[in-house]
Amino acid sequence: MAEEVLLFSTWPSIYGRRVEMALKLKGIEYKYIEEDLTNKSPSLLKYNPVHKKIPVLVHNGKPVAESLVILEYIDETWKNHPILPKHPYERANTRFWAKFIDEKCLPAILKACWGEDRKEREKAVEELSKLLQFLENELKGKRFFGGETIGLLDIAANMIGYWLGIFEEASGVSELLTREKFPKLFIWANEFVSKTSTGTPNLKGMLYLPRDGG
Amino acid sequence: MAEEVLLFSTWPSIYGRRVEMALKLKGIEYKYIEEDLTNKSPSLLKYNPVHKKIPVLVHNGKPVAESLVILEYIDETWKNHPILPKHPYERANTRFWAKFIDEKCLPAILKACWGEDRKEREKAVEELSKLLQFLENELKGKRFFGGETIGLLDIAANMIGYWLGIFEEASGVSELLTREKFPKLFIWANEFVSKTSTGTPNLKGMLYLPRDGG
Repeated sequence: MAEEVLLFSTWPSIYGRRVEMALKLKGIEYKYIEEDLTNKSPSLLKYNPVHKKIPVLVHNGKPVAESLVILEYIDETWKNHPILPKHPYERANTRFWAKFIDEKCLPAILKACWGEDRKEREKAVEELSKLLQFLENELKGKRFFGGETIGLLDIAANMIGYWLGIFEEASGVSELLTREKFPKLFIWANEFVSKTSTGTPNLKGMLYLPRDGG
Repeated sequence: MAEEVLLFSTWPSIYGRRVEMALKLKGIEYKYIEEDLTNKSPSLLKYNPVHKKIPVLVHNGKPVAESLVILEYIDETWKNHPILPKHPYERANTRFWAKFIDEKCLPAILKACWGEDRKEREKAVEELSKLLQFLENELKGKRFFGGETIGLLDIAANMIGYWLGIFEEASGVSELLTREKFPKLFIWANEFVSKTSTGTPNLKGMLYLPRDGG
């Protein structure tokens, strides 16, 4: 039987983009199905009845949901170009930081961008500055979080990569997130964006962090 | 070199208990270090500088934090008595439901037990009833979530196992979480508790869900 790989997503979703990146890195052919989150399809509701969220990967009829879970599934199913390290300790570190990005960094980015008022936004940027320092340290001596090649943690950090680039463009937004303060993250962000964007990326689109994805 | 396995935890923590269960299931010798969360030790702060939370497993000097990450690390490091299934699809399902328990069920249990007022608590119990229905369905045709033996998802669901037992004892608390409505979960909870508790478990203690664990 020929493999059938479907991806239910919505184009600006960073969670959906994670899955697309992994599929593309591994050269897996898939059919992309764009979801309208204001009018979810019966297929999405059938495949992800628990969260009713994108992305959902459907492999030979079997659905997998939650972007980080999907990334591990892809890595275990298609062994070429591994995105998780081999050693259990490094694998644990990768999972730890991916969770950190989802649970700590992304909420802070949300607040930094769309906080209710300037005070809340500035506080979030300050918080983010502390969080990014951890990631800056993680890049020590490495080109990507995954080492010499893009791995699961780079993919999980996609939002940070694209977002830092924008922050730099919009100079004056904050002095806390400068290239001087996070030199490794800025170099990583540039290289990550140039390696993963196809054509001219719509950076503003990438900033959209739907609460309906996961 | 002899293996050195340390576990920093605090006895009532369901997150710490998860790690203990996995270590015991696999027969791994470890040294338990009780943390006082009101006065965290320099070791805990050194080993988990990001979250400053228990549990932390330190294996030959290398720390791993976050209970679900630790469980995967243990399973990849000590191969006997696997707690994750073999097939990628089943592994993905296990990870999906473990995440569901942490992100959906545990917050609902917190609110059901310590909600500000009766209205909030009742609403949480109602929400929990919907969530538990998903887990009830997952047990279809199975003795444990892990199949014939206790696996990662059973361990992740430890709070639910102990908590359902208490709920049943405290009859009249809610008609939404009855043995009639969740027969499989109740049978599972009884068997899980009897298999995992050592001596007389302090069930009230198990209800303590510290915000300082993860």
